[in-house]
Amino acid sequence: MNRLVELRKIMAGNGFDAWLVPSTDPHQSEYLPDYWKRRAFLTGFSGSAGDAVILMDKAGLWTDSRYFIQAETELEGTGIELHRLMTPGVISISDYLLANLKPGSVVGFDSEIMLEDACSELGATLLKGGISLKPSRENIIDSIWEGRPDFPDSTIFPLGIEFTGESAEARLTKIRGFIAQNNASAMIFAGLDEIAWITNLRGSDIDYNPFFISYLIVTPDNAFLYTGINKVSEETWKTVGNLVEFQPYYQFYEDLESLFEKNAKVLMDRNFLTVRISGHLKNNARAIAVDSPVPLWRSLKNETELEGMRKSHVRDGVALVRFFKWLYESLENGVRITEYEASNKIDEFRSQMPLSHGPSFETISAFGPHGAIVHYTSTPETDVDIKKDGIFLLDSGGQYSDGTTDITRTVVIGTPTSHEKTMFTAVLAGHIDLARAVFPEGTSGKQLDTLARKPLWDMGLNYGHGTGHGVGMFSGVHEGPQAISFYRCRGVAMQKGMITTNEPGYYEPGKFGIRIENVYETVVNRPADEKASAFLGFKNLTWFPIDNKLIDYSLLSEVQADWVKQYNRQCVEILKDHLSEDELKWLENYIVNVL
Amino acid sequence: MNRLVELRKIMAGNGFDAWLVPSTDPHQSEYLPDYWKRRAFLTGFSGSAGDAVILMDKAGLWTDSRYFIQAETELEGTGIELHRLMTPGVISISDYLLANLKPGSVVGFDSEIMLEDACSELGATLLKGGISLKPSRENIIDSIWEGRPDFPDSTIFPLGIEFTGESAEARLTKIRGFIAQNNASAMIFAGLDEIAWITNLRGSDIDYNPFFISYLIVTPDNAFLYTGINKVSEETWKTVGNLVEFQPYYQFYEDLESLFEKNAKVLMDRNFLTVRISGHLKNNARAIAVDSPVPLWRSLKNETELEGMRKSHVRDGVALVRFFKWLYESLENGVRITEYEASNKIDEFRSQMPLSHGPSFETISAFGPHGAIVHYTSTPETDVDIKKDGIFLLDSGGQYSDGTTDITRTVVIGTPTSHEKTMFTAVLAGHIDLARAVFPEGTSGKQLDTLARKPLWDMGLNYGHGTGHGVGMFSGVHEGPQAISFYRCRGVAMQKGMITTNEPGYYEPGKFGIRIENVYETVVNRPADEKASAFLGFKNLTWFPIDNKLIDYSLLSEVQADWVKQYNRQCVEILKDHLSEDELKWLENYIVNVL
Repeated sequence: MNRLVELRKIMAGNGFDAWLVPSTDPHQSEYLPDYWKRRAFLTGFSGSAGDAVILMDKAGLWTDSRYFIQAETELEGTGIELHRLMTPGVISISDYLLANLKPGSVVGFDSEIMLEDACSELGATLLKGGISLKPSRENIIDSIWEGRPDFPDSTIFPLGIEFTGESAEARLTKIRGFIAQNNASAMIFAGLDEIAWITNLRGSDIDYNPFFISYLIVTPDNAFLYTGINKVSEETWKTVGNLVEFQPYYQFYEDLESLFEKNAKVLMDRNFLTVRISGHLKNNARAIAVDSPVPLWRSLKNETELEGMRKSHVRDGVALVRFFKWLYESLENGVRITEYEASNKIDEFRSQMPLSHGPSFETISAFGPHGAIVHYTSTPETDVDIKKDGIFLLDSGGQYSDGTTDITRTVVIGTPTSHEKTMFTAVLAGHIDLARAVFPEGTSGKQLDTLARKPLWDMGLNYGHGTGHGVGMFSGVHEGPQAISFYRCRGVAMQKGMITTNEPGYYEPGKFGIRIENVYETVVNRPADEKASAFLGFKNLTWFPIDNKLIDYSLLSEVQADWVKQYNRQCVEILKDHLSEDELKWLENYIVNVL
Repeated sequence: MNRLVELRKIMAGNGFDAWLVPSTDPHQSEYLPDYWKRRAFLTGFSGSAGDAVILMDKAGLWTDSRYFIQAETELEGTGIELHRLMTPGVISISDYLLANLKPGSVVGFDSEIMLEDACSELGATLLKGGISLKPSRENIIDSIWEGRPDFPDSTIFPLGIEFTGESAEARLTKIRGFIAQNNASAMIFAGLDEIAWITNLRGSDIDYNPFFISYLIVTPDNAFLYTGINKVSEETWKTVGNLVEFQPYYQFYEDLESLFEKNAKVLMDRNFLTVRISGHLKNNARAIAVDSPVPLWRSLKNETELEGMRKSHVRDGVALVRFFKWLYESLENGVRITEYEASNKIDEFRSQMPLSHGPSFETISAFGPHGAIVHYTSTPETDVDIKKDGIFLLDSGGQYSDGTTDITRTVVIGTPTSHEKTMFTAVLAGHIDLARAVFPEGTSGKQLDTLARKPLWDMGLNYGHGTGHGVGMFSGVHEGPQAISFYRCRGVAMQKGMITTNEPGYYEPGKFGIRIENVYETVVNRPADEKASAFLGFKNLTWFPIDNKLIDYSLLSEVQADWVKQYNRQCVEILKDHLSEDELKWLENYIVNVL
């Protein structure tokens, strides 16, 4: 592969025996602007997660089960070996380096991206094999990247108090309280989601996430926002100009050396403290790695945010009704519809809804065997018709000024097999058991994860992804700190006001995939009293019916069956005032009888 | 309190503003020999877990919910404040010291007991308040301890290969492999359970645990066992004399300074590396804190051990039958029986069984409201009659040469209320759901814990202890590394051959307590194939029926009801050949019809 050959020449010229290509950017983003998609450029693998390591005579890429099939396809012929994370016998990156490099070798990396914590750990491990880790100010991939996309320059706009329920001023005051509590002089933020939350500003530098590339430094008396000055709209100036001082993006590193007094204690979240930031700070201040309080604060949505989330989910349900009505009626009328067309259509219906800001992640529109590829993206190359008899899985979501949505529906086109019904019903039973759970305050998502898996476990089956993730308010569709997942060591306790998905699944490679996903608000089920702690539960936010044709009611308990029937009826009740007569008629028919 | 007054004089004389009184001993034991029960001597609190801190003008004791009621009673009038761990707003020991001591204060502790890791952490925290932590070679409590019990001197005896299934030689070879793998010169063991396992030796220095006080140092060519030389029986000499060099107990600290070459790498489990051991080693070798591989090796019982566990549990069931027959018949005949008598009686029945080595922990024999005290001990002072109508909870276990047992049965004397039946049935449903669980390899106990709690959660209720702990083979009745518990951050995955309890409960303070406990072996339910990982499940080891009179079958699913009926019938099948005609008749009657 040409790009690897070119890169290896530069590696040799710089004395690097290996070059690390992490999946992320200086802001540890989940979705990167094209400008920073170096791993995709170099390896061809375009998934959202996957780290590569380039040696002089071989290369490897590490990704998780969501991307195994996609990575196999995209890496074919590149000579880059795929390492499947969390499978038996998989080698870690550090062991790979130890096994393939001689003592005295040098492993290079971009200091602007790699975290100090991760580097210390990796460095200590490599040292055992006499291998050293060497930071580089330049990312050597950039020098071979012809036609590299431009630095993002979307306009930054303010989000009003009618959506956020809390002013940027109030949020900055909270941060300053945290700084004072830690006897520090400042706190640095590099997480784009955290900066968007603190400042109540949004942008569109990145697909799916309403963020703008920036750093933020908060001091007791000031706040410096490093971003493209030309991106700041007049409205933004008016709204936060008295709270925030705008500075050019690359001024950030210079200010790290000049802004603080000698030995000033400067806080930064350990998950964003890169080798480069730490290096610049060292010249005058002391970087103190902390856990940012923002993720937990942000996860406890205020009443304005909750109300917006509820309303945006109703709008989102309307878009789903229009989409499925269009899909079923087109197919009924003999119109050919492909996955790719369906994917564009749901995005289109959503974009027509009030307050829409486009999809919240890349729509997964997967028919038949494609449904078994957990993070499948339909492209013109992979595209297939949606037709009888088969299973269609649609996982999609929207960004709205007042909320972020995420819903997966799995439906049958034509007639399901009894095996498909059995499996759908097992996944549904898990979804319901989790949705109905009541649990004492202090319970973490890891403990709840089991409830959604149990019906599959009972059949000797499982699914290879987490059960739920936090969801932002016009922010990231994946938002911490809570998660309903066995992966996490513990995760924080579920708390009132958190917004989390519930999305168990089941996948038969080469056949079909099933996933049923709603978004839930955590609510108090029974308040605490002298005798016992409070019990919490979930309140549904997502409104589009579950496909009755895929349910084998004989496999559900009475309570579970009642839950589905009531849920489907409730979808009609909640959506009906927002639908045309035609749409309502279609929906009413759908909940009893599907094509 | 006189003892506190005396201690404070010595604290003042030594310049200590605070003295730490941890619950444990130099071997971090769960059960201590009387010789080291300093906390009980000083504070009067006799529970198995609880750390005290003595300041000049106040004192505190920290314990967990098992001991809240007992500690309240025992601390009454001492002036020592009780701090209830894991309750809202409880202060940590470090915050307590920070809040109550002035800058410049000195906190003293016994270097032979306190772990290096814990001290570093505490020391760093206290430093923020200008407080320093000062180790002491002497435990100042000893100087006021008149009539201190003697150092334990029970005889050490070997456990044959017919019980262990693996020789001490093989186990030492495994340890040496671990030492080599870590490029180290030796490994030190201070955990009495680990030493007993490695050497296949047992003793009775401690109540309930068949251990002997000792340290073990394993080198590539030798193994030094530091213990009372006079305790070594001739049989022990014959069995391990060629594998192990016996040395006097206190020779250990001297050898730490002389046994190793300069800069030798000496491994020790971080949970046993005390400040004193580290201090002695520092003079010539380097202590490397590791995770001992012994707990995991030991938890994966070999076929000989499993067979012994199964057999000892059958014997244990016979003792239970004799006990409950005696109890019910005595009561029927109008004989007064108290908790304390019952407690002695079950211990007596067990001790009459072949291969018995006494109880595996202090029997909990609790009637009515006493059942709500999770770790209640009946004493002549607290003793009450067992009588109609009430709930009797018996949690007990035995040590046998071929196994360790642990069983809790909750029975009704007379007629239960419908509320008691409802609650018993909820606890039973949780027990059954966990017992019947099938789960993929890699699942941890934390994930399974939820299954046992769910029926109570559904009622807005819970219990304040873990659901299950590992059980040793003629060893500790609480044995890691696995646990079925929400407390643990993760805990290791459940694996084939592990032995673990399943003991959900429900407690109404002032009224009654319910707990249903069996011991289970983890077995392969479905082997791994190319498509999926193995699925595991549980196989029951414990045989004594569940009290039918307390079950409301209308609250169980069909599957759950079948489980109980089949279990109770199986108890009769498995025990019948070991019972007299009378006993069998009683048991057959019991499973359908109870007093």
